[in-house]
Amino acid sequence: MQGLITAVILFNALILGLETSTSVMARLGPLILFLDALCLAVFVIEIAAKLFARGWRFFRDGWNIFDFVVVGIALVPAAQGLSVLRALRILRLLRIVSVTPRLRRVVEGFLSALPGMASVFLLMGIIFYIAAVIATKLFGQAFPQWFGTLGDSAYSLFQIMTLESWSMGIVRPVMEVYPNAWAFFVPFILVTTFAVMNLVVGLIVNSMQDAHQSEENEITGAYRDQVLARLEAIERRLSERAEGRSD
Amino acid sequence: MQGLITAVILFNALILGLETSTSVMARLGPLILFLDALCLAVFVIEIAAKLFARGWRFFRDGWNIFDFVVVGIALVPAAQGLSVLRALRILRLLRIVSVTPRLRRVVEGFLSALPGMASVFLLMGIIFYIAAVIATKLFGQAFPQWFGTLGDSAYSLFQIMTLESWSMGIVRPVMEVYPNAWAFFVPFILVTTFAVMNLVVGLIVNSMQDAHQSEENEITGAYRDQVLARLEAIERRLSERAEGRSD
Amino acid sequence: MQGLITAVILFNALILGLETSTSVMARLGPLILFLDALCLAVFVIEIAAKLFARGWRFFRDGWNIFDFVVVGIALVPAAQGLSVLRALRILRLLRIVSVTPRLRRVVEGFLSALPGMASVFLLMGIIFYIAAVIATKLFGQAFPQWFGTLGDSAYSLFQIMTLESWSMGIVRPVMEVYPNAWAFFVPFILVTTFAVMNLVVGLIVNSMQDAHQSEENEITGAYRDQVLARLEAIERRLSERAEGRSD
Amino acid sequence: MQGLITAVILFNALILGLETSTSVMARLGPLILFLDALCLAVFVIEIAAKLFARGWRFFRDGWNIFDFVVVGIALVPAAQGLSVLRALRILRLLRIVSVTPRLRRVVEGFLSALPGMASVFLLMGIIFYIAAVIATKLFGQAFPQWFGTLGDSAYSLFQIMTLESWSMGIVRPVMEVYPNAWAFFVPFILVTTFAVMNLVVGLIVNSMQDAHQSEENEITGAYRDQVLARLEAIERRLSERAEGRSD
Repeated sequence: MQGLITAVILFNALILGLETSTSVMARLGPLILFLDALCLAVFVIEIAAKLFARGWRFFRDGWNIFDFVVVGIALVPAAQGLSVLRALRILRLLRIVSVTPRLRRVVEGFLSALPGMASVFLLMGIIFYIAAVIATKLFGQAFPQWFGTLGDSAYSLFQIMTLESWSMGIVRPVMEVYPNAWAFFVPFILVTTFAVMNLVVGLIVNSMQDAHQSEENEITGAYRDQVLARLEAIERRLSERAEGRSD
Repeated sequence: MQGLITAVILFNALILGLETSTSVMARLGPLILFLDALCLAVFVIEIAAKLFARGWRFFRDGWNIFDFVVVGIALVPAAQGLSVLRALRILRLLRIVSVTPRLRRVVEGFLSALPGMASVFLLMGIIFYIAAVIATKLFGQAFPQWFGTLGDSAYSLFQIMTLESWSMGIVRPVMEVYPNAWAFFVPFILVTTFAVMNLVVGLIVNSMQDAHQSEENEITGAYRDQVLARLEAIERRLSERAEGRSD
Repeated sequence: MQGLITAVILFNALILGLETSTSVMARLGPLILFLDALCLAVFVIEIAAKLFARGWRFFRDGWNIFDFVVVGIALVPAAQGLSVLRALRILRLLRIVSVTPRLRRVVEGFLSALPGMASVFLLMGIIFYIAAVIATKLFGQAFPQWFGTLGDSAYSLFQIMTLESWSMGIVRPVMEVYPNAWAFFVPFILVTTFAVMNLVVGLIVNSMQDAHQSEENEITGAYRDQVLARLEAIERRLSERAEGRSD
Repeated sequence: MQGLITAVILFNALILGLETSTSVMARLGPLILFLDALCLAVFVIEIAAKLFARGWRFFRDGWNIFDFVVVGIALVPAAQGLSVLRALRILRLLRIVSVTPRLRRVVEGFLSALPGMASVFLLMGIIFYIAAVIATKLFGQAFPQWFGTLGDSAYSLFQIMTLESWSMGIVRPVMEVYPNAWAFFVPFILVTTFAVMNLVVGLIVNSMQDAHQSEENEITGAYRDQVLARLEAIERRLSERAEGRSD
């Protein structure tokens, strides 16, 4: 059953890939659309069956909700934003993750790392908001295309954080109008880079500790149990003898 | 009380965010300025109260000084550099860090990592100064926009260190005049990248050791105390008995 | 023998390097081609000898297959794609890896890290396929040079993942036509960067554990064996005496 | 004495920094050149004194050789390449590293990490040579400014390895002539990035193990000695008693 679903997912991904080729669509358009509808039908039936069997408990598993949403996208009546919804149908391929235990574990590992990074993310959000407000106030009028609104500034600052064209593309032109602009951008780069570095370091230390602890428990645990058991045995012997003597 | 301050900080951040929108300011300008003044008043009263209650001890806590400066920015009479001081008012949002223990700990963690990196920072400062002097001497006359003064060179070298447009933007044009310029820039990139890598490695090893040590102390410490206590008990028993026999 | 082969490899690398210089080829062309053919002859004879001596077992060692392919490239009749095959002859220099045990171990270390990363690679492949299909569907018509076909999109997305000119070069132009395009590209950058970060973290944790374990086994193992042996000895003594007394 | 030398080094660095400013040189040129000559004289006398006192043993310490070379640069008669030699005088500031024990230790730490990375560096050198030969052969004729000679190719490949403008600047233009060029450049990026990642991972694991081992020796060592001493004491007691009984 699961093998069948996996096959349908992969086949559907192929179909949706072929749909991007105009030459293929020109020749086999109706067939491809029909096969896509067929795949969708399989998914809908599968989820409906699960939903029927488990009732509301179906929604207790995050992966089930994920499947439900990803398949459900295709059923939303596409009034506005048609092309976006059609394009999002390929998200169905992500179902391959929910049906493959190994990939599921990798994704769950990724997600489990996120809560520990929440504080740093929050801090970076604060830094971005502050930097966006300052950049908009200072450079918004002279460079509306980059810092015209809070949103524009946040995007430009994200670009600067990724170091893409930060100097030649943005800061050097800004410095021609405001020669001291580097005093805002260089510290911004240093602070955000340092924060990202700390995120990575946190990730490494966490993974490490998990790995170390489980390893410790395996090897060291056995040794420790043995030592403690032997110490206990020696103690018991000694007390037995003490009793024997006191008799 | 702390909840109130947090709410005022967030509300103030929202107000200062709205201030960046010209359309909002056109309609609600006076209201927004009034609400900002109100928030500022709350902060001033809060800090004045703390200052009154604790006297000079108020300044012993770094976070209090931080609050004082960040709120004080708005009270400086803005004669020159008006727009910069107005823009810096958003730094008040950073107070959210000083009132939230969890964020405080993250920032303190960041700051505690800095002293251990002082030597490497000093070394990078030396490398930058040396490279800036050399670049200014060698390329300053031909490329005044990049290497005209020590400051220009330092900025350009920082850009090169971040690898932004270093080749297409800077080094290739320089090499058209000085074909051997790569012999300066490529080693500069290698050395600074290696130094940054060492900074990151240092950060990781430090965090790791902290984490490892505290974990060790928790689990291993208990076990070790137990083993030593038991060995001591066995020894004591044996010596007591030896004494008992020699009686 | 191995020293001779190493010398021939290095000499051949030099010859093939000289072949790239048009001025050298103009003067010494025939000599260089002759020397290259001579080197090739040595390799062919060496491999033929090994093949003759070991028979089919020759192909059980991956490095032998590697040597066979790398030398064999030069013998393929170069009908089409002549220049590519000629250029690939320099791959013979890679034989230096297969004849130097130390380099072999480094490459084997690299390769041994790959299987553990298979799940993350597979996941990244899925993300790339999904993102390429979406990008082709949404932006393919307006920007055929970047997102015209699935292949173009995959290449452009790889470029975006490496952060090269992602904003100034690609996303800003795209946002002039589709203002919400950032909502596709920024999450794509975050997700792929996070996945790559996880790859690196995984690499570090794995290397670390290997190093840690072998170190543990050396130092700690000896200590532990000693402690257990001594505890056993004490226990045995105590029980011997107990038996002695009960006699 | 060392304090004096440090002061002279810093003063000399300042002087050489001022020398880059044309306005300062216009007014104080002769004074600055005189002060620089004075600093140089101090260094020459210092090194001559050391050389006289220690004789040939002076050259056994790498840092002494370093001082000798860095100061000696200024004494080389500057016939050709005058400006380069003059510019290199600032390298004297590096003497601050050799007179400050803390910075010395950081640099020695950097250098001690290099031998462990030798194999990977050698491997990257091989990869670069191979890639440069292939790139020159395949793209040299069509793009002589990037891949005209082995040297040009090596520089361009270094730029591509740093991911600077690799796609928009180099590979996309190349792909307009050779549509399959990505099949050379994308694997090159993946392989070199993976090799650099392995360098960093190696650095981290090494630093970690050093840190871990020294920590182990401190804490664990004390505990282990204690356990072994106690076990020995118990054993001795048991054998003493056994002897006592056999009497």
